[in-house]
Amino acid sequence: MSAPTDVSKYRFNHTMYRVKDAEASIKFYTEVLGMTLLGKMDNPDAKFTLYFLGYQQGPNYKPDDSLSLKSPVFGREGILELTHNWGTENDANFKGYHNGNDEPQGYGHIAIAVDNLDAACKRMTDMGVRFKKRPEDGRMRNIAFIYDPDNYWIELVVHPGV
Amino acid sequence: MSAPTDVSKYRFNHTMYRVKDAEASIKFYTEVLGMTLLGKMDNPDAKFTLYFLGYQQGPNYKPDDSLSLKSPVFGREGILELTHNWGTENDANFKGYHNGNDEPQGYGHIAIAVDNLDAACKRMTDMGVRFKKRPEDGRMRNIAFIYDPDNYWIELVVHPGV
Repeated sequence: MSAPTDVSKYRFNHTMYRVKDAEASIKFYTEVLGMTLLGKMDNPDAKFTLYFLGYQQGPNYKPDDSLSLKSPVFGREGILELTHNWGTENDANFKGYHNGNDEPQGYGHIAIAVDNLDAACKRMTDMGVRFKKRPEDGRMRNIAFIYDPDNYWIELVVHPGV
Repeated sequence: MSAPTDVSKYRFNHTMYRVKDAEASIKFYTEVLGMTLLGKMDNPDAKFTLYFLGYQQGPNYKPDDSLSLKSPVFGREGILELTHNWGTENDANFKGYHNGNDEPQGYGHIAIAVDNLDAACKRMTDMGVRFKKRPEDGRMRNIAFIYDPDNYWIELVVHPGV
């Protein structure tokens, strides 16, 4: 008897990393990268909040302030989950999070596919975004890397279908 | 004049992390998690290979052995990119990659939405997968965490639409 689970129905739902200042990160991912805040889950006992962001929801989407595990958010791909442990944004002793590219290495980056790399980079430059690699740096003309507020790397690639 | 880039067309394309043994990782992500290997990019000068995996390609998909940045792979969401630096799998001095949850913290996990959590966990247990948290451990009955071959965490959630 085969187990009643069908791997063809599995989906790559989300990627999670921790952020120091939720407000700064949500501003960055929505204003700079154009994601939509889909909802959040507060965990008062453990003093953290999870924020879920993604594309394709349109400009008038109303975030769900108490997302449940039954939400449609868990049925789609391309979700970014940001974990905010309360208080880190005001803690002078908090040393910040590790981005996985400095030693010790492991995690690398997320990548956003954009419609026009040069125009996207021009817009981000005008917004004060910090670049690790502009399109014209190095050999690869068709990619760029920016830093998010916690110094996580974000690759910019060109969406082939736009 | 506004810049000719439209953030509503941006997409969360992929998440990248480094793996010690590409063969072991591809076996895990395809056989245990049911992903499809979509293609790879070799970089002989810098001695690394990038592998791209994802869902929704069907069982007969033929991986692209020399993926370009113009591939449709870069137009969709839910892609996992694994970076393999050549030789780590046979290097006795290689200490392994950092999973972001041990100190220093930063990156957390990816999450796979499955059709049936208990059946998925039973199948994975039978396949010898290592669990960090089974559904019955702790307070949250509807999630589990497993380890991949490099000890990266993978959350299992229930797909609400299956």
